Amino acid sequence: MDAAEFRKRGKEMVDYVADYLEKIEKRQVFPDVEPGYLRTLIPDCAPQDPESFEDVFKDIEKIIMPGVTHWHSPYFFAYFPSASSFPALLADMLCGGIGCVGFSWAASPACTELETVMLDWLGKMIKLPEEFLAGKDGQGGGVIQGSASEATLVALLAARTKTIRRVQSEKPELTEADIMGMLVAYASDQAHSSVERAALISGVKMKSVSSDDTFAVCGSALKKVLDEDKASGLIPFFFCATLGTTPCCSFDKLLELGPICNKENIWMHIDAAYAGSAFICPEFRHLLNGVEFADSFNFNPHKWLLVNFDCSAMWVKKRSDLIGAFKLEPLYLQHHHQESGLVTDYRHWQIPLGRRFRSLKLWFVLRMYGVTGLQEHIRKHVRLSHQFEQLVLQDERFELCAEVVLGLVCFRLKGSNELNKALLKSINDAKKIHLVPCHLREKFVLRFAICSRTVESTHVKFAWQHISQLATELLKTWEQKHQQQ
Amino acid sequence: MDAAEFRKRGKEMVDYVADYLEKIEKRQVFPDVEPGYLRTLIPDCAPQDPESFEDVFKDIEKIIMPGVTHWHSPYFFAYFPSASSFPALLADMLCGGIGCVGFSWAASPACTELETVMLDWLGKMIKLPEEFLAGKDGQGGGVIQGSASEATLVALLAARTKTIRRVQSEKPELTEADIMGMLVAYASDQAHSSVERAALISGVKMKSVSSDDTFAVCGSALKKVLDEDKASGLIPFFFCATLGTTPCCSFDKLLELGPICNKENIWMHIDAAYAGSAFICPEFRHLLNGVEFADSFNFNPHKWLLVNFDCSAMWVKKRSDLIGAFKLEPLYLQHHHQESGLVTDYRHWQIPLGRRFRSLKLWFVLRMYGVTGLQEHIRKHVRLSHQFEQLVLQDERFELCAEVVLGLVCFRLKGSNELNKALLKSINDAKKIHLVPCHLREKFVLRFAICSRTVESTHVKFAWQHISQLATELLKTWEQKHQQQ
Ligand SMILES: Cc1ncc(COP(=O)(O)O)c(C=O)c1O
Ligand SMILES: Cc1ncc(COP(=O)(O)O)c(C=O)c1O
Repeated sequence: MDAAEFRKRGKEMVDYVADYLEKIEKRQVFPDVEPGYLRTLIPDCAPQDPESFEDVFKDIEKIIMPGVTHWHSPYFFAYFPSASSFPALLADMLCGGIGCVGFSWAASPACTELETVMLDWLGKMIKLPEEFLAGKDGQGGGVIQGSASEATLVALLAARTKTIRRVQSEKPELTEADIMGMLVAYASDQAHSSVERAALISGVKMKSVSSDDTFAVCGSALKKVLDEDKASGLIPFFFCATLGTTPCCSFDKLLELGPICNKENIWMHIDAAYAGSAFICPEFRHLLNGVEFADSFNFNPHKWLLVNFDCSAMWVKKRSDLIGAFKLEPLYLQHHHQESGLVTDYRHWQIPLGRRFRSLKLWFVLRMYGVTGLQEHIRKHVRLSHQFEQLVLQDERFELCAEVVLGLVCFRLKGSNELNKALLKSINDAKKIHLVPCHLREKFVLRFAICSRTVESTHVKFAWQHISQLATELLKTWEQKHQQQ
Repeated sequence: MDAAEFRKRGKEMVDYVADYLEKIEKRQVFPDVEPGYLRTLIPDCAPQDPESFEDVFKDIEKIIMPGVTHWHSPYFFAYFPSASSFPALLADMLCGGIGCVGFSWAASPACTELETVMLDWLGKMIKLPEEFLAGKDGQGGGVIQGSASEATLVALLAARTKTIRRVQSEKPELTEADIMGMLVAYASDQAHSSVERAALISGVKMKSVSSDDTFAVCGSALKKVLDEDKASGLIPFFFCATLGTTPCCSFDKLLELGPICNKENIWMHIDAAYAGSAFICPEFRHLLNGVEFADSFNFNPHKWLLVNFDCSAMWVKKRSDLIGAFKLEPLYLQHHHQESGLVTDYRHWQIPLGRRFRSLKLWFVLRMYGVTGLQEHIRKHVRLSHQFEQLVLQDERFELCAEVVLGLVCFRLKGSNELNKALLKSINDAKKIHLVPCHLREKFVLRFAICSRTVESTHVKFAWQHISQLATELLKTWEQKHQQQ
């Protein structure tokens, strides 16, 4: 395929994508296929000779689409949103075309520099304290990670290295392995599984801190485990606070937790993967109060800020902490400017070496929506979740399971977990909408997350009527079954 | 921006990308900018109100392009190639449009299943032993990682967990921290820095094994350090063999190393990040002999197989080893089919949680090039490197520094490291071509890597004439300086 054919086919693909997104509502949100469906539809091995674009293109509808879960359907209310917008798609085309691999400044100065500046823009939009910004010569700064999981891991590794160095200087008789065995990281019992995974990867203990009735960790809960662990000779070194937990979007109490972490020499990382985008609205910014105590902070524009996956924004107060955690300098990656202190080599900030020109997506989205456009997007989602909340509240058969703060509603039928599992099953089997559940303590709960960019009040109303009707049907048979038993 | 405007702008972007790639030769391969250039060109913060696409679009040439290192210029001979092709760009547009996040089977069955089948296709293309393939019900299988760095880390983590479990069952008196402190991983002194980094991240010791005169690790070198380390109570658990080392593309001796690793219960991972693509050609497949001894294997289609970044292909013989290393199952990520044994949840195979629909790129590229088209691409690059090799050999002032096996030529002026540093500086300052150096033992060496998809014999000839002329100029002043001293 040469450039001329790419011009033709690229335009066809633009139309295909536009059609797909424009008419996504007509597709069944969750696919009908059974595991293994795809293998039976395609050859056993790659073709020897080239096939035409037409051949490949027609297989998209035949082979791929039947197995796609349509994350951008306005009937998709599962997990958390995955962002998608036209400006981001355009930027990604450009990113692919340029195709640079920006692991160091020299490998593509624009790729590095735009990222630094975009993270400053974004940091200012959520009013991060100045210390987190790179500015012209700050000690902090931002980086785009592929995922919140990586951001947490990178923060934990930086904290681990920093703590090992400190303890070794205080107690030179201890080996690195001794210290590793004494380190403990903490996070809420509501924290995302990626936090526990980060501890597993880096080979340190992780303990969960009990959240309170509102599913938030408060200062006293952290203090209690810290005191116990210190008394038994352990070294607390890392606490991951969550703003907007995955199960029910609760908020750990930063203002209580931060001072404790600072006093105890514990690195505080904040994971606001989903909720962080909301902080661009003044009315939600208070949820971030206490960030000034943190060492690092992360949220995912690829969740709720209309920047297509992957784009997870992370900031640190001291970039030297990150770089110090695993800086290695083989000659083939060195370049002229690197010791000048002026340049950033992002490969020291992340797990992979290679990196795409992802800041283009941020640049396009921030400029083409403007702050006000993005605020509107957030506010619409929050409005819709409150609409759903009202519908739940008006139906006596149902109960809300957590405060609705942003775009997520946790609800269930008053009744057993089995009943609610049956309700979820009937919802997802009908495939008119798609939801996923969570556990809140011992309760099995349904999560209704406002996800799509194009979801409107009518879709939310439809979803509720549908759920309510399935509940009616379910309760009828459920009571019969129950009476028979 | 609505779908209608996206249709318009998307097509403009397709043309822009086509123009960029068609005329890339005319752009200076390495930019003129100084660190900090970009910040002065753009506002301090994001705009409140939306800007038009035109505004953003015209800034691409004004702000971005002046700072881009043009990786796809036929005058780019630095690092290793970063793949780019039109079919891959088309597939990435589709990937963005679908915008699913395929962390589990249910999150998008097509995304997971196409990946498994594509990795089988690719595995067959390089004649991987059957055990590495998923097939219909194999124990092995492949996964797309974002980078070779992540593949190595994932392999090392799997090996770490497996070894800790084994040692704990043999010696229950040892704690996990005790065992962690005794573990040692190994790799060649020529291995990529990402291998050492993987060890740093996972908190285990890493030792380098001396390579021989051909920069390859042979069996006796590994055996020697293993014996020493075992004698001093350490537990060797992981060896990363490199096929196609970054400095000079040397090949560790798998057929000697494999049996040693197998006998000693050491996980052997093979990093063939660059060279792996060549194994699709029968004449290079012998370089992979011995892979049958490995536990995991990785190469980067995003380097040399025309699949745009990121697409790093990894296979394991026992997928349960990977999954066992860090499987966590919160309810919101569970789904109906997951215990059936039929489905793959790729989030257990990788560091991040989220993942794009990257297998589309492989599918488009493998089908639209066909195996023969990809073989031609590899063979052209190898032919061009041998052309360059001949030019070096014909000039008595220069010496070759390592055998030319694939697309990389390591060469230098006969003379001091300072002389060669000066030569490289004059080459990169002229900015007609772009190279990076490496160290081979105490020697400073220039690496000439055939990179671009569109590079031809004329570009190689031009590059050589240019280098040769700069060398002539340099040697003149160098001798004068030398005489004066
Ligand atoms: C609070 C929280 N943290 C982390 C993650 C993981 O995000 P990623 O896929 O970017 O790793 C999620 C995903 O939903 C989340 O809700
Ligand atoms: C042998 C080898 N391993 C690993 C890597 C790192 O690759 P990635 O950017 O995919 O992590 C490279 C990059 O050049 C390499 O040559």
